[in-house]
Amino acid sequence: MPLPVYFDYNATTPMDARVRAAMSPYLETRFGNASSRHEYGRAARRAMDLARQQVAAAVGAHPTEIIFVSGGSEANNLFLKGAAAAFGKGGGAVAFSAIEHPCVLNAARQLARQEWRLIELPVDATGRVTRAGIDDALARQKPGLWSVMLANNETGVVQDVAAFAHSVQERGGGWFHSDAAQVLGKIPIDFRALNQAGVHALTLSAHKVYGPKGAAALVVDKRLDLIPLISGGGQEGGLRAGTENVAAIVGFGVAAELAASRLKELSARLSRLRARLEAGLLPLGATIFGIDAPRLPNTSYFSFAGVEGETLLARLDRAGFAVASGAACSSANPNPSHALMAMGVPEALARGALRVSLGAESNEEQIDAFLPALKAELAGLKNLTALQDESRRA
Amino acid sequence: MPLPVYFDYNATTPMDARVRAAMSPYLETRFGNASSRHEYGRAARRAMDLARQQVAAAVGAHPTEIIFVSGGSEANNLFLKGAAAAFGKGGGAVAFSAIEHPCVLNAARQLARQEWRLIELPVDATGRVTRAGIDDALARQKPGLWSVMLANNETGVVQDVAAFAHSVQERGGGWFHSDAAQVLGKIPIDFRALNQAGVHALTLSAHKVYGPKGAAALVVDKRLDLIPLISGGGQEGGLRAGTENVAAIVGFGVAAELAASRLKELSARLSRLRARLEAGLLPLGATIFGIDAPRLPNTSYFSFAGVEGETLLARLDRAGFAVASGAACSSANPNPSHALMAMGVPEALARGALRVSLGAESNEEQIDAFLPALKAELAGLKNLTALQDESRRA
Repeated sequence: MPLPVYFDYNATTPMDARVRAAMSPYLETRFGNASSRHEYGRAARRAMDLARQQVAAAVGAHPTEIIFVSGGSEANNLFLKGAAAAFGKGGGAVAFSAIEHPCVLNAARQLARQEWRLIELPVDATGRVTRAGIDDALARQKPGLWSVMLANNETGVVQDVAAFAHSVQERGGGWFHSDAAQVLGKIPIDFRALNQAGVHALTLSAHKVYGPKGAAALVVDKRLDLIPLISGGGQEGGLRAGTENVAAIVGFGVAAELAASRLKELSARLSRLRARLEAGLLPLGATIFGIDAPRLPNTSYFSFAGVEGETLLARLDRAGFAVASGAACSSANPNPSHALMAMGVPEALARGALRVSLGAESNEEQIDAFLPALKAELAGLKNLTALQDESRRA
Repeated sequence: MPLPVYFDYNATTPMDARVRAAMSPYLETRFGNASSRHEYGRAARRAMDLARQQVAAAVGAHPTEIIFVSGGSEANNLFLKGAAAAFGKGGGAVAFSAIEHPCVLNAARQLARQEWRLIELPVDATGRVTRAGIDDALARQKPGLWSVMLANNETGVVQDVAAFAHSVQERGGGWFHSDAAQVLGKIPIDFRALNQAGVHALTLSAHKVYGPKGAAALVVDKRLDLIPLISGGGQEGGLRAGTENVAAIVGFGVAAELAASRLKELSARLSRLRARLEAGLLPLGATIFGIDAPRLPNTSYFSFAGVEGETLLARLDRAGFAVASGAACSSANPNPSHALMAMGVPEALARGALRVSLGAESNEEQIDAFLPALKAELAGLKNLTALQDESRRA
């Protein structure tokens, strides 16, 4: 049986063949512990040094600003908990957008147990964090920690992070973090420029960008004081202990380089494919979330009135299309998307949400096959609902 | 140039070909996010379920007792910080042996900043944690948290963990953890029996046992309350968020199964090889640390009076033998081994420490080539020292 068409690149991506090839020796003969002082160890260390340069170069950072960690969730937790712990006792206020990834929201909730005040920054109906929310937080609480994502994983909506960080720096300061896990390889990232605007830390993740699972980075302004989540042998400048996952880090380096080098071409292509997709979705009656905001070029998040997203996802899966009903990371959560609720989307419509996220292997033929399949499933569901609800609808 | 002979299996191991083969599909077409609700996601989830069963079976645990994490350091930090956080405010006392891995020692030091009292349990001259130290801690402080490793990474000395845990449970209790990262595949581990004795958590690591870097586990008695280090999407029962490193976890499962199935044969073989090695070391004047204690079958840790370990390591590396001068994880640390200092080894002798740790690919020919090479390097160093110190020695 052929594999389903993969339309879930925001959940994770297949590894690029060049990434796999670069990793291969480090899964075989170059297996050394990067801390070992013999040739096996030195070979691993050299490979990590190169990967660090590659990741740094891809986002306009310096290699010494890269802290390798195991994943984006770890990077986000490291910023929030690590910076909060460095503040010492007493806490303060932490501001984060209402549409952050659960790993930011839940890390912030843990801080609330340590007497940090939580400030949720609202978004407008298009999914954009509002300037008014930032101004309000600055006026009332002066948060010491901020976390606003560069783009949302569900809607793809891009946030005015540099402008917000600039306002924060102009009005009293605070350590400002941005989750860029969904952004690498889709729109340009310039950490130097962001840092000058007032962003002190960025989260990147390898497996979102045709690299392996198991490698990610927190890019940090070194003035930011962090207490490690994982302490021990002194790896990563004492900020993340543990034997380094050399092969995954090597893969991350190559993936980051590839992401930067093909960004323009890939983004333009995905943007065209998405336009083709959405041109077909609208006549089917789709509400497309965030369509009036700047979005990542590959993401389309939509809903059909009266159709349950989970049901449609399962039917599309059987029909050979792998899409998401929201963020994969919260698929165990039966609640409608917190991002859509924050945007003021009615709950019934939010429960219908379906996400198509395109990527390197996506093509027109797949879109052209998807649209009639979707139409057929919608019709099938409508008939089913009509039968079930006959009395009510009569 | 041929690769050096690898004698540093306690630092990390090459992956077994069976592990690599099992991982391969998950690095290629089965790349799904295990939380995704389509076929790619379900395939990843099924693979993780199997790996969880394999790891559990290898150590006599139940699959629901396995929390997958990114490495042994993370597992150790998760126990110490996670259990301490669950205690809530006020802290208490945490007891750990003086020879724990730096990730236990440094995690405990972080707890000291949160008003936990630290109790370092002493070891005797053979490297064994003493019963008197345990009794003393119980009599004076009643620690709420304990961490005593099953075997030490440098000396290989095996600790009476079950007996210690039993004493702790008999006399007031406390959550008891043991770092078993060096033990899996070398001597049998029975979590059920350890748990009955009073051990509540065990650390395992894939890359120490011919599995990949990037996967490890904290095996936990579910009565142990833990606050996650990495919170977010609810993976691993809410105790470790983040997209699972499916390929690495699959590799860990196969490696754990392999470790259990060949333990007897491999341990017996490594024990014979080590005896051959040590029979050659003693006539060269080696002091072998922990030789009078029960040790892991593969580890030999020794020193030659007047010879600097780092220097000898570098010379052996050039001569084609990869050994360690201590734990790889602390190679950035210029101090002599904290484990040897805790054993009361004179500093000069401790600075000479060299570790040979054998593994699956080790053989008699390698030992027989190593001994004369070592002898030659020792003679070379002695001549060099003689020249340098001529005046003093005259």
